[in-house]
Amino acid sequence: MTRIYGGPAAFAREALAGFCDLHAEFVHPVDGGVIRSTRTPEGKVALVVGGGSGHYPAFAGYVGPGLADGAAVGEVFTSPSTARIVEVARRAQHGGGVLLAFGNYAGDVLNFGAAARQLATEGIAAQILPVTDDIASASADERAARRGIAGNVVVYKIAGAAAEAGYDLDDAVRVARLANDRTRSLGVAFAGVTLPGKSEPLFTVEPASLDVGLGIHGEPGISTRAMTDADGLARLLVDRVLAEAPAGAGTRITALLNGLGATKYEELFLLWGRVARLLAEAGLEPVAPIAGEFVTSLDMAGCSLTVSWLDDELERLWLAPADSPALHRGTVSPADRVTAAPRATRTDTIAVPAASECSAAAADRIAEVLSYLAHTLAEAEAELAEIDTFAGDGDHGEGMVRGSRAAVEAARAAVDRGAGASTTLLAAADAWAAQAGGTSGALWGIGLRTAAYEFSDDTAVSMPQAVRAARAALNAVVDAGGAVVGDKTLVDALEPLVRSLETDTADRDGARRWADAAAAATAAARDTARLTPRLGRARPLAARSIGHPDAGAVSLALCATAVGKALAQ
Amino acid sequence: MTRIYGGPAAFAREALAGFCDLHAEFVHPVDGGVIRSTRTPEGKVALVVGGGSGHYPAFAGYVGPGLADGAAVGEVFTSPSTARIVEVARRAQHGGGVLLAFGNYAGDVLNFGAAARQLATEGIAAQILPVTDDIASASADERAARRGIAGNVVVYKIAGAAAEAGYDLDDAVRVARLANDRTRSLGVAFAGVTLPGKSEPLFTVEPASLDVGLGIHGEPGISTRAMTDADGLARLLVDRVLAEAPAGAGTRITALLNGLGATKYEELFLLWGRVARLLAEAGLEPVAPIAGEFVTSLDMAGCSLTVSWLDDELERLWLAPADSPALHRGTVSPADRVTAAPRATRTDTIAVPAASECSAAAADRIAEVLSYLAHTLAEAEAELAEIDTFAGDGDHGEGMVRGSRAAVEAARAAVDRGAGASTTLLAAADAWAAQAGGTSGALWGIGLRTAAYEFSDDTAVSMPQAVRAARAALNAVVDAGGAVVGDKTLVDALEPLVRSLETDTADRDGARRWADAAAAATAAARDTARLTPRLGRARPLAARSIGHPDAGAVSLALCATAVGKALAQ
Repeated sequence: MTRIYGGPAAFAREALAGFCDLHAEFVHPVDGGVIRSTRTPEGKVALVVGGGSGHYPAFAGYVGPGLADGAAVGEVFTSPSTARIVEVARRAQHGGGVLLAFGNYAGDVLNFGAAARQLATEGIAAQILPVTDDIASASADERAARRGIAGNVVVYKIAGAAAEAGYDLDDAVRVARLANDRTRSLGVAFAGVTLPGKSEPLFTVEPASLDVGLGIHGEPGISTRAMTDADGLARLLVDRVLAEAPAGAGTRITALLNGLGATKYEELFLLWGRVARLLAEAGLEPVAPIAGEFVTSLDMAGCSLTVSWLDDELERLWLAPADSPALHRGTVSPADRVTAAPRATRTDTIAVPAASECSAAAADRIAEVLSYLAHTLAEAEAELAEIDTFAGDGDHGEGMVRGSRAAVEAARAAVDRGAGASTTLLAAADAWAAQAGGTSGALWGIGLRTAAYEFSDDTAVSMPQAVRAARAALNAVVDAGGAVVGDKTLVDALEPLVRSLETDTADRDGARRWADAAAAATAAARDTARLTPRLGRARPLAARSIGHPDAGAVSLALCATAVGKALAQ
Repeated sequence: MTRIYGGPAAFAREALAGFCDLHAEFVHPVDGGVIRSTRTPEGKVALVVGGGSGHYPAFAGYVGPGLADGAAVGEVFTSPSTARIVEVARRAQHGGGVLLAFGNYAGDVLNFGAAARQLATEGIAAQILPVTDDIASASADERAARRGIAGNVVVYKIAGAAAEAGYDLDDAVRVARLANDRTRSLGVAFAGVTLPGKSEPLFTVEPASLDVGLGIHGEPGISTRAMTDADGLARLLVDRVLAEAPAGAGTRITALLNGLGATKYEELFLLWGRVARLLAEAGLEPVAPIAGEFVTSLDMAGCSLTVSWLDDELERLWLAPADSPALHRGTVSPADRVTAAPRATRTDTIAVPAASECSAAAADRIAEVLSYLAHTLAEAEAELAEIDTFAGDGDHGEGMVRGSRAAVEAARAAVDRGAGASTTLLAAADAWAAQAGGTSGALWGIGLRTAAYEFSDDTAVSMPQAVRAARAALNAVVDAGGAVVGDKTLVDALEPLVRSLETDTADRDGARRWADAAAAATAAARDTARLTPRLGRARPLAARSIGHPDAGAVSLALCATAVGKALAQ
């Protein structure tokens, strides 16, 4: 378990600050993550990686010559927000475009995707590359739905070397995709992982058992089997990974044996001896294989095997020199190691457009409703966390509280500067997404932002406008996340509530009835959650399973109840 | 706990083999450890480090340009035997002499000291440097008795840079001693550590507590205090370490924040932020501080802070380029990174001198007695392990079984080749020391070897000869280990038994009486051990406390009983 922290909420931020102090020869801190502090040629493609904290060396440990140009860093096990990714990419780019690479998780897909679009509007070419190496997370004919685990490191190393070698953006994306297409991983866990400040692990492994196909965020495995010795474990990992060899694969491979935190180096070296024998028996020739801790899951006990089938180009890029806090290869040119001054920060001054008096009054009401909603979420934090541990990583309560609190602060600040309804809700939406991070943060940000576009800074908010805004928000969330009713996401609660809004609510009584409906929806969502505790192996593990199963629906319904009550007053 | 292994006995060997396969660009495997595989100039001083396994990256992870030339590797938490150290040093040396550096533990002191003497007889100049950074293990006026923990890494880095810079042996020893004199560490543990194949940890930390001043072999701390947050922990470590600042210390320091295995990177980075603030408040300027896993204790939860006060020379050497599997600094010259062919192995053919018929018969009897003794130890393995966990690291039974078994095999092989009594016992002594490793292995090796010199290959073994041999063995063990009766070592049992041999035993009846005395001594040693379970904080923690408290006396008395019974038959 994680034992050293101040407040759990500040864990990721404080860890990153300490990392930056220790590794100033490689990285500069920026809002949302780190960028290279070493000299980098203009015009080079920038590789920007990222994901949640708790995985060090992933991802900030891979920033340096021959590797990444920047890393966006989220809260523990939580995607960095779109705003953080955009800021890191802006500052990391050298005029050659940005390749955004990340493990294929719903939150990361949402946030990196939105960041790429945002960068494009700023004239910075950006492409995304979700890594999908985890063979346990979806079947072979749904490879695009698979999660990214330790295979990230192989793909980033190859993409980073391509960028360093002067590949243009399209070519860097091509070779990074090729690396991803030829990379397969499988992990096992011997014990669960406990988040900073929590007393219970996210999941447990039965005694004398191991979980096969675990995730790196405390997601349980797809099957449990009796604990085995080193021979059995090597056999299990090698057999399953090699069974997924890509079509036309040759015999040159690289391999990465990754420890998740408490499975230590000597165990990994010993296991490597057996893995290497089995790979040789299969006629494969490992090129510069590596074993150690590359993508951890705090102090989880477990490991994973990654195999990448190489061609000449991939092998050359895998072997190219690299230098970073966590991964070194060969000799990087001394010129590249020279520490450069940080790039100037772009100062964003948010303009507050003039607003009518009635819109300003509506804005004040929006801030008030948000405050009521934030209060409700703060009260429900423990419950949401508990529900989220059934099938998620237990941080839903925390994220919602962080997001809603930031939204209230941003809305209040906007109101204080005379903002109207639309501007105020936009400010709230962006603050929520930026501070909550993760899937839910991104979806709430998208929903609120879309709703804000239905309002204006000139008029008050009418009930029909609010209903249209709710429908637009629902559509935007469905578009972004791809979930439909029944997928155990917040859409399960949002869809019927929007429908009931559309058919009934036109006045204060309607609002009261709607609040009742929302309360009923909350109860229903709670029941669903309680009926499916520890969904474990049954729930979809793949990247398309967005958000926090059940917990997202409960928190949405709770928020709707709060809003309904506020409107009915 | 360690979960990946085949047989626990092979853990260290197999882990090392996997490591060598993965890091062939840095190391070649040799009997007993690893040597550099990179090109190294002739005439350079060779830095050879070493210690038990279970501490990776210590020690094999620090072999490479700018760092060590070789590492001798023992079993888990057990000193490498003298034979292993000698073999590694022989193959690692480049004609400029050898600096043998290690943490100041009894077993390492014995074995590295004996190795230095052995190397000298072969014409290889060798000097030893025991690292003594752990301020918890003895008081400030007994600094030479302190243990070595993570401060090893700072001393090795500086010594390695000095050797690389062309310092001669005396000068390298001077600067390494200076580095050690200016290095202080303190560690804390949050939880105990479990050895491969064991189900119980070597010690436990009470819930919501931390142990201060732990060792890196599962030795408990010197005090227990309530768990604290990151601020409190930083304050504790910094205050105590700075209170021990060496006389005349300046403000330039380096610092190393070490995780013991399950205390992960982000926790260490976060803690570093606070440590750095406190160091700055104390007016100190850290130069290239490092935080990560440098000297682990399998997957123990805990960490340590090391501070080294630098002068200009130490700072230059600390900052010099280095390249190794685990530690990189700056840019090492590409020429130094070139992989060189392994040096030829010296083939040792052990000559068996001609023996008289009666001496060969005595040799056969020696092999038989050893076999009886090994059988007794094998039966007592679990009990010895249990007693050893009271105040040691629980591996005493394992080491004794490994040593005695190897002794029997070596004796049988010698007998088969017609060896006499002296040659047979010498072969057994060397095999015991080489295979058992650690303190007990070294002491048993020294004792048996000394005894063998009292015998010859021409005559049978007379009872007066055997008595003289026992006295000589006792004297040699006391000389080597420095323990006296009452120190809770094997001397406690050996001294009275030798005395009783000298006063009484002259015939078979005497042997029977002696066996009875040995049985009584065994019972007494057992009682002592049971009366002092979990000596913990009371027992001497410093390096001078040799061997396995209590367990060593029990195993010696058991062996004496077995020998007495065998002789009485």
